[in-house]
Amino acid sequence: MPAVHHKLLLEDALQDSPQTRSLLSVFEEDAGMLTDYTNQLLQSMQRVYGAQSEMGLATEQLSRQLIDYEKKNFALGKGDEEVVLTLKSFAKTVGELNSLHSELAHQMADSMVFPLIQFREKDLTEISTLKEIFSIATDEHEAAMVKYSRLPKKKENEKVKSDLVKEVAYTRRKQHSASLQYYCALNALQYRKRVAMLEPMLGYTQAQVLTTIWVTTH
Amino acid sequence: MPAVHHKLLLEDALQDSPQTRSLLSVFEEDAGMLTDYTNQLLQSMQRVYGAQSEMGLATEQLSRQLIDYEKKNFALGKGDEEVVLTLKSFAKTVGELNSLHSELAHQMADSMVFPLIQFREKDLTEISTLKEIFSIATDEHEAAMVKYSRLPKKKENEKVKSDLVKEVAYTRRKQHSASLQYYCALNALQYRKRVAMLEPMLGYTQAQVLTTIWVTTH
Repeated sequence: MPAVHHKLLLEDALQDSPQTRSLLSVFEEDAGMLTDYTNQLLQSMQRVYGAQSEMGLATEQLSRQLIDYEKKNFALGKGDEEVVLTLKSFAKTVGELNSLHSELAHQMADSMVFPLIQFREKDLTEISTLKEIFSIATDEHEAAMVKYSRLPKKKENEKVKSDLVKEVAYTRRKQHSASLQYYCALNALQYRKRVAMLEPMLGYTQAQVLTTIWVTTH
Repeated sequence: MPAVHHKLLLEDALQDSPQTRSLLSVFEEDAGMLTDYTNQLLQSMQRVYGAQSEMGLATEQLSRQLIDYEKKNFALGKGDEEVVLTLKSFAKTVGELNSLHSELAHQMADSMVFPLIQFREKDLTEISTLKEIFSIATDEHEAAMVKYSRLPKKKENEKVKSDLVKEVAYTRRKQHSASLQYYCALNALQYRKRVAMLEPMLGYTQAQVLTTIWVTTH
């Protein structure tokens, strides 16, 4: 891993040197890897959430099934009272576990899956939007430069030349402004990613702790 | 629900009266309902087991995913040591939960699903096999009776008649023997069904208790 600066300096944006471009590409590569990793992590977390949610639904069905024994009105049902009562008490326990599993699933959705989705939708999407804007501004500036450089060196072109100089300056300002925003977002991502990676797992752990408390107090 | 005897008396099998047949049909209806209920209960339990098993696989994947963060070698990975360490410690916790979920799934398979499958495969299948054998023996006996009753009352038929009497007696013995086995199995089912209904839920509860112990000692 090359030793790199961990910050894109905003004052370097104006000069837009090859060194700055090279550092930018490192930040972009990192953001791309982070996007891939976030998608994989999110997929794993959604799988855990899905299993937890299914656990809630499955225990709910089992609880109902146990209660149904009585409703079946078995042809030889007399004398089944004990079985009916015991199955009902099991149904109650399973019902409580169902509440627990459903609560745990809700917690996971809120404290684990949601923060990571938000990170992806907000922070990572912002990066790709700003990258797009920066890229368009760069293209426009380069197009203006090309037009200017191809201008015939004749006296009567002074008006056109003056307009083109204005266009070059305008697109340069636009590109500079876009790069400032882009650099800012890339720098911020380096800080936000730590919270983004840890927050969902804190939520997961918190949900598990709440379960432990629930289990030990019941 | 009609007041019924809860036992098919074996001594009634020989006479095979309409009353006995009527009582038999009640036992058969009950066994049929029990088979339906067992299939539904088994389906619910397999769903719970499936969810528990998926929970194990999902947490295993999440644990691996958390460890993978380090292996990604992020372009700006320097300074990520803290995130890597924290994610690793989360991975350890999730890994322990994975062991727990997998163990719980195994327990459920062994102590909840398996006993009910065994009840279905052994006891309920035995009932339907014996019912089939009893039905065939009854048909054979009735066929012999019909043949005997249609025998012309002539002197020269004595040999044929004597053979038919033997056949009627033989098929009657066979049917009697089949009915004894069938009655026995139907009577036994009434006792076994209580254990069969409660044993899987005891297994389920035991698995949950083991979880509680695990959770509170970790």
